[in-house]
Amino acid sequence: MGALRLPSLTSVFSASSARSSLLLRRSNHLHVRKLTSTTKVFANSSPVTEVAPPPESNQKQSSIQEQGITPRSQDFNAWYLDVISMAELADYGPVRGTMVIRPYGYAIWEAIQDYLNLKFKETGHSNMYFPQFIPYSFIEKEASHVEGFSPELALVTVGGGKELEEKLVVRPTSETIVNHMFTQWIHSYRDLPLMINQWANVTRWEMRTKPFIRTLEFLWQEGHTAHATPEEAEKEAMQMINVYTKFSYEEAAIPVIPGRKSRVETFAGADRTYTIEAMMGDRKALQAGTSHNLGQNFSRAFNTQFADENGQRQHVWQTSWAISTRFVGGIIMTHGDDTGLMLPPRLASVQVVIVPIWKKANEKNEVLGAALSIKDVLHSAGIKVKLDDSDQRTPGWKFNFWEMKGVPIRIEIGPRDVSSNSVVISRRDIPGKPGKVFGISMEPSVLVPYVKEKLDEIQLSLLEKATSFRNSNIVDVNSYDELKEAILQGKWARGPWVGSDEDELKVKEETGATLRCFPFDQPQGGPKKCLMTDGPADEVAIFAKSY
Amino acid sequence: MGALRLPSLTSVFSASSARSSLLLRRSNHLHVRKLTSTTKVFANSSPVTEVAPPPESNQKQSSIQEQGITPRSQDFNAWYLDVISMAELADYGPVRGTMVIRPYGYAIWEAIQDYLNLKFKETGHSNMYFPQFIPYSFIEKEASHVEGFSPELALVTVGGGKELEEKLVVRPTSETIVNHMFTQWIHSYRDLPLMINQWANVTRWEMRTKPFIRTLEFLWQEGHTAHATPEEAEKEAMQMINVYTKFSYEEAAIPVIPGRKSRVETFAGADRTYTIEAMMGDRKALQAGTSHNLGQNFSRAFNTQFADENGQRQHVWQTSWAISTRFVGGIIMTHGDDTGLMLPPRLASVQVVIVPIWKKANEKNEVLGAALSIKDVLHSAGIKVKLDDSDQRTPGWKFNFWEMKGVPIRIEIGPRDVSSNSVVISRRDIPGKPGKVFGISMEPSVLVPYVKEKLDEIQLSLLEKATSFRNSNIVDVNSYDELKEAILQGKWARGPWVGSDEDELKVKEETGATLRCFPFDQPQGGPKKCLMTDGPADEVAIFAKSY
Repeated sequence: MGALRLPSLTSVFSASSARSSLLLRRSNHLHVRKLTSTTKVFANSSPVTEVAPPPESNQKQSSIQEQGITPRSQDFNAWYLDVISMAELADYGPVRGTMVIRPYGYAIWEAIQDYLNLKFKETGHSNMYFPQFIPYSFIEKEASHVEGFSPELALVTVGGGKELEEKLVVRPTSETIVNHMFTQWIHSYRDLPLMINQWANVTRWEMRTKPFIRTLEFLWQEGHTAHATPEEAEKEAMQMINVYTKFSYEEAAIPVIPGRKSRVETFAGADRTYTIEAMMGDRKALQAGTSHNLGQNFSRAFNTQFADENGQRQHVWQTSWAISTRFVGGIIMTHGDDTGLMLPPRLASVQVVIVPIWKKANEKNEVLGAALSIKDVLHSAGIKVKLDDSDQRTPGWKFNFWEMKGVPIRIEIGPRDVSSNSVVISRRDIPGKPGKVFGISMEPSVLVPYVKEKLDEIQLSLLEKATSFRNSNIVDVNSYDELKEAILQGKWARGPWVGSDEDELKVKEETGATLRCFPFDQPQGGPKKCLMTDGPADEVAIFAKSY
Repeated sequence: MGALRLPSLTSVFSASSARSSLLLRRSNHLHVRKLTSTTKVFANSSPVTEVAPPPESNQKQSSIQEQGITPRSQDFNAWYLDVISMAELADYGPVRGTMVIRPYGYAIWEAIQDYLNLKFKETGHSNMYFPQFIPYSFIEKEASHVEGFSPELALVTVGGGKELEEKLVVRPTSETIVNHMFTQWIHSYRDLPLMINQWANVTRWEMRTKPFIRTLEFLWQEGHTAHATPEEAEKEAMQMINVYTKFSYEEAAIPVIPGRKSRVETFAGADRTYTIEAMMGDRKALQAGTSHNLGQNFSRAFNTQFADENGQRQHVWQTSWAISTRFVGGIIMTHGDDTGLMLPPRLASVQVVIVPIWKKANEKNEVLGAALSIKDVLHSAGIKVKLDDSDQRTPGWKFNFWEMKGVPIRIEIGPRDVSSNSVVISRRDIPGKPGKVFGISMEPSVLVPYVKEKLDEIQLSLLEKATSFRNSNIVDVNSYDELKEAILQGKWARGPWVGSDEDELKVKEETGATLRCFPFDQPQGGPKKCLMTDGPADEVAIFAKSY
């Protein structure tokens, strides 16, 4: 099949179309966009590499220019794809399942990187870089690892015009090559712990792809550490899932549930996998980050040994942990609404947009002058601010545009505001009049603290809203019937569980839900009856449908 | 052949060897290390992918532990490889020609990124990310591009266990996929200029590799821009070569010569290529960064058009520009000396190392206490400082170790210094006593400005030394005989040139030197006689052997 692409926002909003200022009006929420063909591209189960056709002609594009974003409430998936396209977060690459991350989307990833990179260094890790080409034989060394990854590999078989003697794997993850190197660097207990991280691209030949959530190539960081004792490795794996949890709550305003994966869901090659599970706006679960205690699985496979204080050779104990561009998808699907994207202030590349309003030419200068001075004041205070002073667009168009782009705060300023030395401030998270405050003084001593306070309030409010949504969609269940009912309702089911791997797979087959995690936060009191086997269960588990 | 690897520094200096504290003594400069076999690995001309053997046993390693760094003056190439290994900058990947960039080397790249990333944003560019898999057919669209790159391609032919219908190129550079996307994003003159950058890995199947300088995979940034007029594109290409030039001088202390490439040396697909050419310590030239004016070559091949103000469709005018991890190699080869690495303070991840000195147990506490407080003072002042308080090593060993690692300033502090409330400060760039100053007060109000001033002095001094070395090794020539003589002496030859492509290739064939650039900085006065053709030449060109 021919791969259809969403038109890019640039084309949809092309300034050359006079009608485009009508676009994205507030009343467009019921304006349904037919995107089923696009949706199909992303659900395409064909492994064939397809190259997109040349761009549509302008004639074709103009027919889409009257359309807005599919309301989230109506079709979550179409809404998600619309937001990504219209807010210019990403576009489709020419090869099936690949994605171009556009500047506005990449800026979210950069904000994630800035925060995590600092935390990784604070917790003692150094950045470095491993080659992405891994000899095929490496992948085969750890038994469960090869089983987990071999169906998803991309292989380089030709280099410099010649068939290679040994085919090369384009890294799906780097445990094998990391261990190959660790074996050369680690000799004594004094070389431990060895704690590193890399920011890199990885490739997994996924059959069903979705922008940000699951793509053939994605960006991530992967931490890798080696320790002298199992206790240290466990402590490290826990430390890093805690870093991810704190990041999710405090920066992304996503109330993830941290916990332990079941055996079935554990990473291929790990003893234990910790995860943060996030509830998306459609109540599906998203695994948003993982931290693995690898035990000695890779150190035995690659013979990574150290001499302990008594001179005895031992295999090192290891961890690995990762967060990827998938997290950007999690942010979109957690906070977005019918109007479009909604960004948490701490990860927004534009926290405040200033929209100047004038009608007559003589008003323009004074309004723009005031807007510029407000921009400078906020910028100097460390606030990420943008002044939209284009005269190609009406203020109303700009309001809608920046709301759709998820900018937390809008400042409006017109001739009357200039006279009264004040501005109007609107919150993205509270639609319409309730979120709008008039007459905030332009005085820096008033305006700056006011804007900062509002940004903090919005940050907190997004977290609270997501938490409340999450809590109201988790059902405590005590039997398999109750579990099935909860899943049928699209909710998460939480109940006592000591079921076998087979029991777990049965749930998946019969309900479509998987065991997301045994949450760290467990109910008080002694063991309860397992919802499936009636046996005594020390822990509750969470089941949900997931991405 | 089996690929031999250099032992890593961790192993060479393994604390488990009691003898290792003898290592890296000042007197080791004539201690030659036999590294011919390793050197051969990097000069390996076989395209066969080879996997390194398992690490040598400890027994083998101990035989190398007595050895130091090959003096630069004796064997530049062996010295270079030794420095990379001993200073833990990089290691060999398991696949021939690939490189693992270790934390100390990666930190240099991070410092380069930090500076350039800011400058790119200040000059109006946004970061984004393009997929690394490019349909093979894309590469074929621009005629000279395919000619230039097809011999170096790595091809993915299998994905998810199946043979692909169209093989995929692992990006050697991204002009083709960038233009494929630009064509979809650009419609009107209002969409221009479009100015983006990406930080990414790229793959070129090189036959002769050398760490940092030429590897199968390397890291870089690639900027790509599209403009409405040829003048704007030219201005952008020049702006970016100027950013690189300023960076080289001010941050890396490398006195590059910016200029224009000849037709023969122009990038495959560009109208004009600008370059910064750096003279390494062995007087070979290193192309350290390039900026291309692509004209309309790619926009015609990919039909990247815009409607101008009169509604006429025109092809966009483009640029691309890049700096890579090769630059790290340039830093090593510009500033390093027989002792090892020498880092310019502005790119050093450790600018100051503090070495505490004590003999008796009762001295240890007060010395370490004073050292810690100095560390805090410098750290608070924004200086990158490390305290080497290990008691596994003697102070003498530490002196040599950190000199070899190229740290610009060493602070020594012993019991007598503590009594006198002062420290001893040594400069890496001035060996021995002349670089050592006693009795610098520990008072923050004295110490901090003193250290900052010294760092600035060292930064400037490295640039001056490199500039003077460069100037004394460029010979002005007026005939082909003079050119041949200069090249024979290992120098750069600069002379009037209007030779043809064939003349240029003849020089390469007969002398091994290539036309590095027509420098922007041209001698005053009218046209001179071309050194080769005797015709009137408006410009001088520089010829040199190069990496």
